[in-house]
Amino acid sequence: MKTSVAGFRFGGISAGIEEGRRPDLALLVADADVPVAAAFTRNRLKGAPVLLSQDRVRSGIARAIVVNSGNANACTGKPGIEDAQRLTRAVAVALEGDERRVLCASTGPMGVRLPVNRILPHVDALATLARPEGFEEFAATILTVDRGPKIAYAEVSLGRIKVGVLGCAKGASMIGPNMATTLAFVVTDAAIEGRWLRSSLKEEVDLTFNDVSVDGEASPNDSLFLLASGRAGNKPLDGGADGRAFRAALRDVLDDLAHQVVRDGIGASRVMTIEVAGAPDVKAARQVARRVACSPLVKTALFGASPDWGRMLCAAGNAGVDLDPDRVDLWIGGVQLVADGVALGGDSVERAEQEMARESCTVRLHLHAGQGEGRHVTCDLSDEYVRLQSQHRL
Amino acid sequence: MKTSVAGFRFGGISAGIEEGRRPDLALLVADADVPVAAAFTRNRLKGAPVLLSQDRVRSGIARAIVVNSGNANACTGKPGIEDAQRLTRAVAVALEGDERRVLCASTGPMGVRLPVNRILPHVDALATLARPEGFEEFAATILTVDRGPKIAYAEVSLGRIKVGVLGCAKGASMIGPNMATTLAFVVTDAAIEGRWLRSSLKEEVDLTFNDVSVDGEASPNDSLFLLASGRAGNKPLDGGADGRAFRAALRDVLDDLAHQVVRDGIGASRVMTIEVAGAPDVKAARQVARRVACSPLVKTALFGASPDWGRMLCAAGNAGVDLDPDRVDLWIGGVQLVADGVALGGDSVERAEQEMARESCTVRLHLHAGQGEGRHVTCDLSDEYVRLQSQHRL
Repeated sequence: MKTSVAGFRFGGISAGIEEGRRPDLALLVADADVPVAAAFTRNRLKGAPVLLSQDRVRSGIARAIVVNSGNANACTGKPGIEDAQRLTRAVAVALEGDERRVLCASTGPMGVRLPVNRILPHVDALATLARPEGFEEFAATILTVDRGPKIAYAEVSLGRIKVGVLGCAKGASMIGPNMATTLAFVVTDAAIEGRWLRSSLKEEVDLTFNDVSVDGEASPNDSLFLLASGRAGNKPLDGGADGRAFRAALRDVLDDLAHQVVRDGIGASRVMTIEVAGAPDVKAARQVARRVACSPLVKTALFGASPDWGRMLCAAGNAGVDLDPDRVDLWIGGVQLVADGVALGGDSVERAEQEMARESCTVRLHLHAGQGEGRHVTCDLSDEYVRLQSQHRL
Repeated sequence: MKTSVAGFRFGGISAGIEEGRRPDLALLVADADVPVAAAFTRNRLKGAPVLLSQDRVRSGIARAIVVNSGNANACTGKPGIEDAQRLTRAVAVALEGDERRVLCASTGPMGVRLPVNRILPHVDALATLARPEGFEEFAATILTVDRGPKIAYAEVSLGRIKVGVLGCAKGASMIGPNMATTLAFVVTDAAIEGRWLRSSLKEEVDLTFNDVSVDGEASPNDSLFLLASGRAGNKPLDGGADGRAFRAALRDVLDDLAHQVVRDGIGASRVMTIEVAGAPDVKAARQVARRVACSPLVKTALFGASPDWGRMLCAAGNAGVDLDPDRVDLWIGGVQLVADGVALGGDSVERAEQEMARESCTVRLHLHAGQGEGRHVTCDLSDEYVRLQSQHRL
């Protein structure tokens, strides 16, 4: 897989934030100020890096993003904001740029001050070692409890010009819908008109990252950034056939990363996609899909490979959507278990059990109440999830 | 504890619905038609017994309730309704009463027809053995995966007249807010005006059963019934000081039962009460309390006795309530962990850990945004929960 696009450099270094000298400070830097779009957590509680970056991306232009693991810089009050400002200022100085063009993101424990004095001496070295081939180091540095890095790449031809879309993500816990889940960074060498970049990202995040969850909880630090260097030399995208082609590539990358985040969910052993069709509208379809996916009863059934259609229907009935239970059909994989709200019985449960036992399965619900379609991707709730989450100490 | 009130008889019998000849058919019968109020699941998916009883309680009058365990009679379509009708008709015949005054409730697996032909031969015997002292048999017969029966009693003096309120409940799984959680049956010998009986029950259920959860999932069969025989001979209650006194006793019984349901939640080892104060209004306070209580991150922390204030604040921030994270205070037991949204540190975590390790603990959040107060009671999410819920087979 290609792991570079023209116009960007990447690096990772150990700055002593985490114990054991693991790389914990990462830098993504564009060769010049470039258009940027971003999505942030919708949690009312926002970490200092989110508050700072949210403010700065309003300009639509960015030069660099500095990211640390080992500390979330959340619930740290005004001093936390000042810490984030100091760090981005140091990066701007090292790049001989404007600090307002430097964004930041943090992940790790909450409620602890960022050790800025320990970090600052490493910033110059990080800026120096950042290189076009450094994406894998960057992707590894931002991880916390992840089992491994998550990288995706897609290419698309705009006439004779090829553009690349490259992204990475981190995240294994506190992952829920309704936000730009987790940390994710996407770069492209395509030239893109700023307003269209922002609207495109918003729509594509909604269809990808916002339709996956591990435990349904949006973290205070979730951030997703998209930067476009324009180095491919195409006519700046703002829609049309080229725009659609680019959007498809962007969606591929985001969807790939979102799936990787779910597969690497804490304690996860299986992935399940809930597809809802025939809902009154798209919003209702997504709401039902999400409610089914987030039910602990459904998620434990998935862990046990039990095709418990009753729990799925029950969760759908609790979704707050006006559905007629007497019209609902339900399939697991290719096996229909419920028709018009009534269990089919026979050997359907036995056959569906084989579908549930796979590494990934699809549950389809048809509500026969309209044209709305939606989906949600989630993982199981395992004994390993409980073990890891209950043993975690502050 | 007293387990009878004048005017009601109770019984339980094995009718061969469950395997192993365990008692599975229960009857609650009033000496005459009496005022009734009820609360039912708000799940869109409703079992046949809920559909039938919901229709019949509209009359405000009932004579008896027949309850079975071992079969939910849900997702059984029109034949399921007819099965419930046949069963209540047989009970009416045995009591020489009107079938429209016979209510019903079922709990057990979904999607299987109720074996009415097997049940009907036992109905006469059940009607005959029902007796004023049979409440404990009734309470035991309605159980499924419960560890034990849940009974509560309260007494109140209305002038010189003493009235009793007696209730029982079942339920250990599929227990969530926003409904009349689980099956519960409450009887009183007080005389009560019908309309006031219904409004009182609605309000008190909202403050008790609707503020507890085990896994946050309302079942299709949740039902709660309150019948008043009037045998105490008091002037029919419809408010005033006597009404308030009765309401306090009713709330005690409902609250006691609701707590028993949580303590007996599947796999539960600890109970946690989330109290929210200073919310914009009562609805917002309850919403925040419920969101914190239902977070799998908070529930696994409770299992591990980890005072993870960060997960609690994070869940509060996801509650969809307009709160200012920089003003939130948080305590566990008597230990303050967060002031104005900032972690206090020091030995607060260590001290709070002792509070979390108890059988039950209280988390208090103050939002400093108004006068609204609310609470939610829940249990932990344990490895035992995952084991039991994932091993369950259709």
